[in-house]
Amino acid sequence: MQHTPLRSHKQSGMINGNFRGKDIISFDQFAAEDLHILFDLAQHMKQIVVNNKTSHLLEGMLVSLLFFEPSSRTFTSFAAAVKRLGGQTLEMQNPEIVSSVNKGESFEDTIRVLEAYSNAIVLRHRIVGSAQQAADAAEFSPVINAGDGNNEHPTQTLLDLYTLYEKFGRLDNLTGLLAGDCLNSRAIHSLIRGLSLFPNNTIYLLSPQQLRLAGDDLVSLSARGIKLVEIRSEKEIPQQADFWYWTRVQKERFASREEYLQGLKETVVVTPELLRTYAKSEMILMDPLPRVDSVDPAVDSDERAVFLRSQIRNGLYTRMALLALVLGRA
Amino acid sequence: MQHTPLRSHKQSGMINGNFRGKDIISFDQFAAEDLHILFDLAQHMKQIVVNNKTSHLLEGMLVSLLFFEPSSRTFTSFAAAVKRLGGQTLEMQNPEIVSSVNKGESFEDTIRVLEAYSNAIVLRHRIVGSAQQAADAAEFSPVINAGDGNNEHPTQTLLDLYTLYEKFGRLDNLTGLLAGDCLNSRAIHSLIRGLSLFPNNTIYLLSPQQLRLAGDDLVSLSARGIKLVEIRSEKEIPQQADFWYWTRVQKERFASREEYLQGLKETVVVTPELLRTYAKSEMILMDPLPRVDSVDPAVDSDERAVFLRSQIRNGLYTRMALLALVLGRA
Amino acid sequence: MQHTPLRSHKQSGMINGNFRGKDIISFDQFAAEDLHILFDLAQHMKQIVVNNKTSHLLEGMLVSLLFFEPSSRTFTSFAAAVKRLGGQTLEMQNPEIVSSVNKGESFEDTIRVLEAYSNAIVLRHRIVGSAQQAADAAEFSPVINAGDGNNEHPTQTLLDLYTLYEKFGRLDNLTGLLAGDCLNSRAIHSLIRGLSLFPNNTIYLLSPQQLRLAGDDLVSLSARGIKLVEIRSEKEIPQQADFWYWTRVQKERFASREEYLQGLKETVVVTPELLRTYAKSEMILMDPLPRVDSVDPAVDSDERAVFLRSQIRNGLYTRMALLALVLGRA
Repeated sequence: MQHTPLRSHKQSGMINGNFRGKDIISFDQFAAEDLHILFDLAQHMKQIVVNNKTSHLLEGMLVSLLFFEPSSRTFTSFAAAVKRLGGQTLEMQNPEIVSSVNKGESFEDTIRVLEAYSNAIVLRHRIVGSAQQAADAAEFSPVINAGDGNNEHPTQTLLDLYTLYEKFGRLDNLTGLLAGDCLNSRAIHSLIRGLSLFPNNTIYLLSPQQLRLAGDDLVSLSARGIKLVEIRSEKEIPQQADFWYWTRVQKERFASREEYLQGLKETVVVTPELLRTYAKSEMILMDPLPRVDSVDPAVDSDERAVFLRSQIRNGLYTRMALLALVLGRA
Repeated sequence: MQHTPLRSHKQSGMINGNFRGKDIISFDQFAAEDLHILFDLAQHMKQIVVNNKTSHLLEGMLVSLLFFEPSSRTFTSFAAAVKRLGGQTLEMQNPEIVSSVNKGESFEDTIRVLEAYSNAIVLRHRIVGSAQQAADAAEFSPVINAGDGNNEHPTQTLLDLYTLYEKFGRLDNLTGLLAGDCLNSRAIHSLIRGLSLFPNNTIYLLSPQQLRLAGDDLVSLSARGIKLVEIRSEKEIPQQADFWYWTRVQKERFASREEYLQGLKETVVVTPELLRTYAKSEMILMDPLPRVDSVDPAVDSDERAVFLRSQIRNGLYTRMALLALVLGRA
Repeated sequence: MQHTPLRSHKQSGMINGNFRGKDIISFDQFAAEDLHILFDLAQHMKQIVVNNKTSHLLEGMLVSLLFFEPSSRTFTSFAAAVKRLGGQTLEMQNPEIVSSVNKGESFEDTIRVLEAYSNAIVLRHRIVGSAQQAADAAEFSPVINAGDGNNEHPTQTLLDLYTLYEKFGRLDNLTGLLAGDCLNSRAIHSLIRGLSLFPNNTIYLLSPQQLRLAGDDLVSLSARGIKLVEIRSEKEIPQQADFWYWTRVQKERFASREEYLQGLKETVVVTPELLRTYAKSEMILMDPLPRVDSVDPAVDSDERAVFLRSQIRNGLYTRMALLALVLGRA
């Protein structure tokens, strides 16, 4: 018998309280109870890191990091998550350059080679749907989507929600402001879906004319039970907002340089003045990063600006938790 | 005394049952008894991986992976082999870009720097003979050849032979079919040499006219005692073949696009139909990968197609075994 | 409270016997007593490596290696230093290609992201002052300068001094010859500063006309109490020199190819003949590497040529010691 399965066949679809062996492709796989399981464990992971404890939870485990696209935060935090838990990584960045991909190897074969050598595959790829394609190709190893084009980036949403959960102790009855590129930002779309899993949340949306949430997105997201309110100027920012979530305007989304500059002109940038005028004291300012023309570095010293503090660190804790759960070690 | 040797001087040449500290440059260093030692240990390594056991065999050891050429399987499986055994890697891919090689450092100096920091060096390089050159430059650390141009790639042959050994429990009295680029494939040449270490093996060769095994290679390989039979069409494939070994036709080997297309036209591709017609049930289909126009993905679900199953995994087990032996930890 | 500091705020400035949490930006932070602390520990680290002992000193620790410039020795030896002590690395080479730097992320944000995921940051960057800039951006994690343009490369000087210390048992009353590019070499400038911390050292300087130490550097370095003597030909090399320190002539420093070739013509290259004629038996020949037109490989077999022996290995031991001290584990 030449073929010994290394692991039992993996499963797809809804988490339903059981992460073990599951592909993590879309945020839609998560229900409220799954988030609670994950966030409880993330809390525990934070204690490991903050207290510099040694963990052997992933000892003997290898996780492939296959990144076809540039990334610093996501790549580094996944690598850190594996290593903080005593596991090891197989790192492949720009595989078009360094691997057999440039000899014409198919994407599916690359995935199946990696799954032969590792316990899980974390994938970042330019192409929408590539994470599902990888999950279909992999017979045994779970695939974790670390961003497939502008489609899904579920672990970004997990860390965003965890940041709110840790701050407010709840994910319901929140008022938030989402700003910047509401049309294209997968982080914004996904965060709205996440918050719609919990009752009584209200989201205000502020963006340049050309970057408003698409009409059908507005309809389909509202249908999930969350209250969405579009505003047209900073003057309409609600004083009771518990959080602001700012995103950058992406140059490559515009048809011409003129339209881009016009878009930028209409974009509201967070300044100390803006915070002073419109934000309450017990709110937090978030940004999925990188921030480019979205948040003025002058606000960094404000304790409410959490994007380079707890938000970025929560990416580590939630990914540690997710890996431990998917790999069946928690 | 400013110079303390970190290790005793290493040795070259035939293995002769003792791998410790040896450079592994050519498959010709191996005799049948060396293969048995290695394969017994690979069997043990497989148990570590399959059962997800933690191994500390290479704890405290550093292995340099110096890859001047793109590679995915070989690089990743060596990295996985080191890490699965509790060792660590120093990884340098494309050193022309990221290292002092682009300041004009000689190849020998790069090797001597790396040997100062690591216990062994795994080298992949475009240039024929570079592995021996590295072995000569390194005073203490063994060098393992992970492919030097189209010259040698001994660990590929080790994993191929191990795949046959594991399936059939022997390496003698086998009938095989080698197909594709018999002229240039180092994997094919080496595999023939490997099988000629054991009695009563018969190999059929099938390739396009232009990619036949060179006449002098046919003579010199036959002189090793193995029976080589050239065939001209799939219709001559022997029904009793225990294994098929398929290789891709490499575009860059042809003088012109026309010749390449002609070569491709004459190339036999493995399809479900071909397997159904010419292969017996207890055979295996191998491919050193990447497969490009060599094996139709439609055969992947056939249990006999082991290239993305046991064959690819055996690359991990045999490299784990080889590293442990060369580093004196087994 | 959403923001829990992972570590207490770090400190800058003079070491003063306490390395813990300090940024290591300039060699000027070190006093003679700091060097003794470091070198005693390096001696201990050498025993770990030479005897292949397993160390868990940095277990659970993550060190970021952020290299914007090509490097082989420095990158590899820092990576080896972390891993030999049981720690793990987050490696980012050429971040312009693989990270959000190419989306317009600021240098400060990149640093703050990395410090969120790691216990220390080792930085190599083309731009003078970038290491201090990183240290200012990082709130908690110490930053170690692995070379900022032609400004500072403190760990190079640490390993050079340690090499002298290990050989002669002292850093005072030494006579040395520094040769090659005395004008631009940061390694030479820094080594002179290091030796001026100890009494009665005499340094001879030998370089092509155009690459002499700048007049003001000669004045300011001499003011530190070290005796500097410029010589114009190999014939003036003092027979009593305890060490020679050779550096390469860097092509990119010259205005034209003609000037470069003229400079090369005037450059003294170390040959077996030169050593035979001018060097005593108990001296050592050093080179910070890479050597290009500086030292003839024919001298490599001379036991006095330590650059690819103890000098290169001392880079590992001193960096192990520095990391352990800065991370508070020694």
